[in-house]
Amino acid sequence: MISKHRSEKAGLPPGTLLQNRTKKQSAEISIIDYTPKTFQEKKVKKSAACAPLKTKKSVSWINVSTVNDVKQIEELGNTFDIHSLVLEDITNTDQRPKTEDHEKYIYTVLKMLSYNSTKGKTFIEQVSILLGDNFVISFQEADGDVFNPIREQIRKNESRIRTSKSDFLAYSLIDSIVDNYFVVLEHIGEKIGKIEEQIFSHPNQHTMEKIHALKRDIIFIRRSVWPLREVINNMQRSESKLIGKESKLYFRDVYDHTIQIMDTTETFSDMLSNLLDVHLSKMTHGMNEVMKVLTIIATVFIPLTFLTGLYGMNFIHMPELQWRYGYPFALGIMLVAALLMLAYFKKKKWF
Amino acid sequence: MISKHRSEKAGLPPGTLLQNRTKKQSAEISIIDYTPKTFQEKKVKKSAACAPLKTKKSVSWINVSTVNDVKQIEELGNTFDIHSLVLEDITNTDQRPKTEDHEKYIYTVLKMLSYNSTKGKTFIEQVSILLGDNFVISFQEADGDVFNPIREQIRKNESRIRTSKSDFLAYSLIDSIVDNYFVVLEHIGEKIGKIEEQIFSHPNQHTMEKIHALKRDIIFIRRSVWPLREVINNMQRSESKLIGKESKLYFRDVYDHTIQIMDTTETFSDMLSNLLDVHLSKMTHGMNEVMKVLTIIATVFIPLTFLTGLYGMNFIHMPELQWRYGYPFALGIMLVAALLMLAYFKKKKWF
Amino acid sequence: MISKHRSEKAGLPPGTLLQNRTKKQSAEISIIDYTPKTFQEKKVKKSAACAPLKTKKSVSWINVSTVNDVKQIEELGNTFDIHSLVLEDITNTDQRPKTEDHEKYIYTVLKMLSYNSTKGKTFIEQVSILLGDNFVISFQEADGDVFNPIREQIRKNESRIRTSKSDFLAYSLIDSIVDNYFVVLEHIGEKIGKIEEQIFSHPNQHTMEKIHALKRDIIFIRRSVWPLREVINNMQRSESKLIGKESKLYFRDVYDHTIQIMDTTETFSDMLSNLLDVHLSKMTHGMNEVMKVLTIIATVFIPLTFLTGLYGMNFIHMPELQWRYGYPFALGIMLVAALLMLAYFKKKKWF
Amino acid sequence: MISKHRSEKAGLPPGTLLQNRTKKQSAEISIIDYTPKTFQEKKVKKSAACAPLKTKKSVSWINVSTVNDVKQIEELGNTFDIHSLVLEDITNTDQRPKTEDHEKYIYTVLKMLSYNSTKGKTFIEQVSILLGDNFVISFQEADGDVFNPIREQIRKNESRIRTSKSDFLAYSLIDSIVDNYFVVLEHIGEKIGKIEEQIFSHPNQHTMEKIHALKRDIIFIRRSVWPLREVINNMQRSESKLIGKESKLYFRDVYDHTIQIMDTTETFSDMLSNLLDVHLSKMTHGMNEVMKVLTIIATVFIPLTFLTGLYGMNFIHMPELQWRYGYPFALGIMLVAALLMLAYFKKKKWF
Amino acid sequence: MISKHRSEKAGLPPGTLLQNRTKKQSAEISIIDYTPKTFQEKKVKKSAACAPLKTKKSVSWINVSTVNDVKQIEELGNTFDIHSLVLEDITNTDQRPKTEDHEKYIYTVLKMLSYNSTKGKTFIEQVSILLGDNFVISFQEADGDVFNPIREQIRKNESRIRTSKSDFLAYSLIDSIVDNYFVVLEHIGEKIGKIEEQIFSHPNQHTMEKIHALKRDIIFIRRSVWPLREVINNMQRSESKLIGKESKLYFRDVYDHTIQIMDTTETFSDMLSNLLDVHLSKMTHGMNEVMKVLTIIATVFIPLTFLTGLYGMNFIHMPELQWRYGYPFALGIMLVAALLMLAYFKKKKWF
Repeated sequence: MISKHRSEKAGLPPGTLLQNRTKKQSAEISIIDYTPKTFQEKKVKKSAACAPLKTKKSVSWINVSTVNDVKQIEELGNTFDIHSLVLEDITNTDQRPKTEDHEKYIYTVLKMLSYNSTKGKTFIEQVSILLGDNFVISFQEADGDVFNPIREQIRKNESRIRTSKSDFLAYSLIDSIVDNYFVVLEHIGEKIGKIEEQIFSHPNQHTMEKIHALKRDIIFIRRSVWPLREVINNMQRSESKLIGKESKLYFRDVYDHTIQIMDTTETFSDMLSNLLDVHLSKMTHGMNEVMKVLTIIATVFIPLTFLTGLYGMNFIHMPELQWRYGYPFALGIMLVAALLMLAYFKKKKWF
Repeated sequence: MISKHRSEKAGLPPGTLLQNRTKKQSAEISIIDYTPKTFQEKKVKKSAACAPLKTKKSVSWINVSTVNDVKQIEELGNTFDIHSLVLEDITNTDQRPKTEDHEKYIYTVLKMLSYNSTKGKTFIEQVSILLGDNFVISFQEADGDVFNPIREQIRKNESRIRTSKSDFLAYSLIDSIVDNYFVVLEHIGEKIGKIEEQIFSHPNQHTMEKIHALKRDIIFIRRSVWPLREVINNMQRSESKLIGKESKLYFRDVYDHTIQIMDTTETFSDMLSNLLDVHLSKMTHGMNEVMKVLTIIATVFIPLTFLTGLYGMNFIHMPELQWRYGYPFALGIMLVAALLMLAYFKKKKWF
Repeated sequence: MISKHRSEKAGLPPGTLLQNRTKKQSAEISIIDYTPKTFQEKKVKKSAACAPLKTKKSVSWINVSTVNDVKQIEELGNTFDIHSLVLEDITNTDQRPKTEDHEKYIYTVLKMLSYNSTKGKTFIEQVSILLGDNFVISFQEADGDVFNPIREQIRKNESRIRTSKSDFLAYSLIDSIVDNYFVVLEHIGEKIGKIEEQIFSHPNQHTMEKIHALKRDIIFIRRSVWPLREVINNMQRSESKLIGKESKLYFRDVYDHTIQIMDTTETFSDMLSNLLDVHLSKMTHGMNEVMKVLTIIATVFIPLTFLTGLYGMNFIHMPELQWRYGYPFALGIMLVAALLMLAYFKKKKWF
Repeated sequence: MISKHRSEKAGLPPGTLLQNRTKKQSAEISIIDYTPKTFQEKKVKKSAACAPLKTKKSVSWINVSTVNDVKQIEELGNTFDIHSLVLEDITNTDQRPKTEDHEKYIYTVLKMLSYNSTKGKTFIEQVSILLGDNFVISFQEADGDVFNPIREQIRKNESRIRTSKSDFLAYSLIDSIVDNYFVVLEHIGEKIGKIEEQIFSHPNQHTMEKIHALKRDIIFIRRSVWPLREVINNMQRSESKLIGKESKLYFRDVYDHTIQIMDTTETFSDMLSNLLDVHLSKMTHGMNEVMKVLTIIATVFIPLTFLTGLYGMNFIHMPELQWRYGYPFALGIMLVAALLMLAYFKKKKWF
Repeated sequence: MISKHRSEKAGLPPGTLLQNRTKKQSAEISIIDYTPKTFQEKKVKKSAACAPLKTKKSVSWINVSTVNDVKQIEELGNTFDIHSLVLEDITNTDQRPKTEDHEKYIYTVLKMLSYNSTKGKTFIEQVSILLGDNFVISFQEADGDVFNPIREQIRKNESRIRTSKSDFLAYSLIDSIVDNYFVVLEHIGEKIGKIEEQIFSHPNQHTMEKIHALKRDIIFIRRSVWPLREVINNMQRSESKLIGKESKLYFRDVYDHTIQIMDTTETFSDMLSNLLDVHLSKMTHGMNEVMKVLTIIATVFIPLTFLTGLYGMNFIHMPELQWRYGYPFALGIMLVAALLMLAYFKKKKWF
């Protein structure tokens, strides 16, 4: 039986990158079996149906659309001689991306990012891939359509995948996962662009929250990307017989992509830090402006108000009050005082 | 005799991660001795009782529940030929996690974290493990129940541990220690989640203190985790005959967990830094708001008050005062002035 | 056919370093063919015209002035036996700088920076270089004149390029690209100098925006420079027969230049961080000054105004009001109070 | 003659970690000569007295209590065939900790930290150790008692040092120096604890200065600790015949200690950075509180004062003034205005 | 001919570390030729005079006091078979410090720092050194006296340099350049000390500018120091026959010095960052103090002024105004109000 070693919860705070789709309890297994010339596709519920594929010469791709149906996964594992630690890893969706060479098969676990433009959020999902001599088994957390383009290609006779071995199919799956990172990064890039524009045109108190949300996403994406690079590098340099020389050339290409993803992630991180600096500087500047207005108004009127108070006193003997032009004179003094203050602020370049 | 090389105190400031339980002065030694088929369990006070175990073919697990009973530890050390530097390290609870291969046995010292949800605090405890050909000796700082699930497993006939050698027992102990890290991180993750929520809903002056407390915990956890990774890696790659090939596979699994713990620790550290930035930005924003209110009120009323002062002056010759509609006229001027100020602030987007 | 693996957009936020010139859809191919003694130059529209060059002993330089004419590039690729992954990389202008040794040719992709002083902006363009035994094929994103000095040199009989093999031509192209980095950095250096001067003479709210814009440029330049260093280093240490020993000496020279470019980039980054600190400190200082003026004016006049209010009260029994010298006495008290406040501020070194 | 290569001053700012004790000009040389069974101890002024020790089979420990008596050191150097560059390093007290293997002897230079609790300061001193086949020569900057416990041990017959060779004596000296780091770190840890307490109970303007002073000490301690680790590692892995296998085990123990010292130093550095953040946040929070009080008082009373001013005006035609209940009515309006303001602030959670 | 590859300007902002002395256009070549027993010294204008030195067995030191006289340098290069890329590097004063082994000679380029205490500024100059079998050629940017002490030593019969080969002369030149770094760092250290003192005694607005200027210097010094370490390390480990075993020992000594220079540079950088933090904290603290004074004065007097306004109103029916002791009663209320406010501030520990 597959035992769970670890606490169910991953130790991550609530509200981190979310799983997108509802998970099913019972597995849906789609099988594609092909040679350059033949092609067969079906959907089953029980993994027992996969047993005959193990000994066929054709390349079989078994895609399991959930990792919660422990029973089917265990049975599938037994059929293809998968180590129990690997099966445990497949069902545990907190895995760090990694690749392990078990001689008869290579076990690779990756994080797939996807951007849901309706919700404006990035979702994360774990994909496990087992690459054997004549089979590829992929496990998704939930049913999805990300591999459909690959299915389309396989359906075409004489396509590159059909004429290649299982390693090229595994490459195609990984390549489509890596390509999704670019889409997600593109959306994040657009958001950064909007924030930047907003900071310079009409910054407000939600800007900080948006920057924070993106920084958070970047932290989680980086968590997936760093080990991803390692995984692809290991496959590119693998000494396993399961990965052919020509496929390695393709894996090198994916490797270049992961490096670029890392670069972009770091660039975004740097840009967000810069934007945060600008935002804080803008806020301080705004406070400065507020202070200046207050200071100008207050320092101009406070002395004047003092003067009015002075001549509002009720002393019996205040000669100025009796003067014929006392009032206009007082007004004159106030005007001069106010102009002097304003001249001072002008000199200080406060406005 | 075990001499203490070093100052008793660890050089750490008071109030750091705490030891949870009261320490006993006299050791309580629990012995479990098993083969796949036989099983024996007892508790003794004197380490002399362990002497016969050394030559038995069965696997013996000796758990010592304190490191303060120097006399018993020394005797135990002599019985199993443990180097005096190792014994010294066992009794010194400031060790950095490490593993040392002494040919006849492997000495491993780890930090065990545990979260006490009643006190809301993380506790730390040192565990030393000596792995020999047919024995495992573990030293805890204080009596605890963390190893009870393992005891349960051993009690079951034909369990994985019972049918394996001493290396698998050592793995089980280390694995249960590493699993506890996830539990602690989970609690920290929840706290971070709460702080985040609080910052965005009703930030207050204690938020900073909470962030500080968590950053502190992270600093100390990182101190345990970084060397932990190294320790497990050394065991996974060990060339010692004491660790079998199959057990290494399991150690690789634990190694993946330590990497994930490190990742999560770093992620938490980054998130806390982000939260600190947001918190400070929120505080500055709050100050800005306060300043704006003050400025709006003050700049609207200060000129008005000046006007009231003006007409409160006691000059004899102030024609306005005699006017029939002087008072409503003055009120009108004030209203216009106030509206102008408010329009200005509106334009400046202050409210 | 060249298929695009990846999302068209590069995942970068809008408004990053820009492409300078308008791109053409149909390729313009300029061919220069030379031996130490002979020289031939022509412009064609179709890549079919290049086929005969492949087998000639002379060195041929084929420069393609766009990467959008996929058809011509594909045909050229077929003529010179270029791998389809390489052709894909050539047409994809989001490549990370890299060099790949394909035995029969070396594929190098670089970013070319150029500074447009009219617009005051830095532009970026991708250049791909294929170095073969007797040919060099270069692909620019758009038609440009950056390689004209090299053309001039080739036109001269007995010039260093004419008397060397294709590797020296490739070196010359790369060297001219790297030299352009210095020009761009020089302009950035001048801008930093101006900002520094401005911060110390008359800082204003746009300073932050300028610092931000430069930091952004630096982030993108660093993205090009780090892999550039790697690329040149790989060429300098290449074990390919295509790069001769003498040329490696020249590549070492370029390598020194890239190190210096990296150093300068890092220095600029550090300087901008410093300037940001100074700028923020200046802003805080400015706020301090504003606050001090407000405080001095307010604290001097507020107590005085209180006194005037006091003697403005209408109580019937206020003996001071009847005094002969009540008014001058009150004035005297105010003067003393004001002087005491000023003395206090003087002591506090507020002005 | 020993020439000084370098500027006398070390390039360090004044007021850095200080030398504790007054330095003497003429050396005081203490000699301890022992075999497991024999023991001899004496103090001399001239290094000539050490010459016979060179050829004796016994282990000799020569401790020189100053590095200013260049003449004696030179003579000693000539007696034991020490390279002139080493002698120069010994007399230069700005050395970076290092170890050099000169085949016939190993030269090690370390920094010794000590905490003077009376002055509350950390002092630093350079110690050079020459380990030869049958001798150890140690040079202190000034006379001190740090090695007394080792002397005590040597005086005991059959002690570990007496029964070992010179390498164990060198280990003992280095171990006692490293142990002193823990004492110093402990004191710093206590200070950090006090600052933390102070920040949360009654922060004041000197807190910043205390944090700064500790950060400074940490910077200088790190300068000593990083190379120290390297030094001990080199000795632990040394291939010199001068360090025996058993001693290497002990050096590994010291090495673990240096790693722990480094860890603690880094932890302290992180904690101080955290405390600085908390301190600054507390200060900003304090300013916020001050601002709020000002704003509440001002915004409540400024409109009220305007109202009093209004009815203090001297217009002849002000109907309200004649009303029977004009005064209580005005008071009522003021009360309502004040309560509205307070309710607003309450809603804003300002108090 | 020596062609300039690169833009004349170095890409550095104006106002960076300056060249100290005026540069001459025509070279001044000083020649010192010596064997242990013979010695010859002369100054020439034309490099042709150096040709005979190439074949002499004696050691020749040719020092060229400018790098602008391209013609003489080219001729000298041809005489001693120097590669044209090296000659180009010599005349280009933007080189990054590096060392290149060209078999027949070793080319080293370094930056020499010097502190001009009159101007209070640090100057930088490039020095190139060519070490051949029997010659050393050094190129300074301008005429200077930094090598005079070495000349003095050579003039002495039987001095260490005279009895050694050319490698020791090269070491002496490099050592004297490295020693100058200590002098510069010492001056910077003193400045840091002064700033620190100033911050704690009477901080002012120029402190920030001084910290900025030093940070800038440190950035540029680090640019010279990091590659310097590499250069010296390469010479110390060089496999060239041109550097003898004994000289390598001396280069190791210089290497230790460069490590110490790096350490000190990093320490200074850390100290400046600390000082910046302290400075900013002091400024914030200062603002806090200003705010508190304002708040205390304003909040004490604003309610009082309200009260005076209240009894300054002209309502006909204000019973208090008629009271016999209305005025002293009002004064009493004001006093009580003021004292209550002050007690509140006292409790809040504002003064």
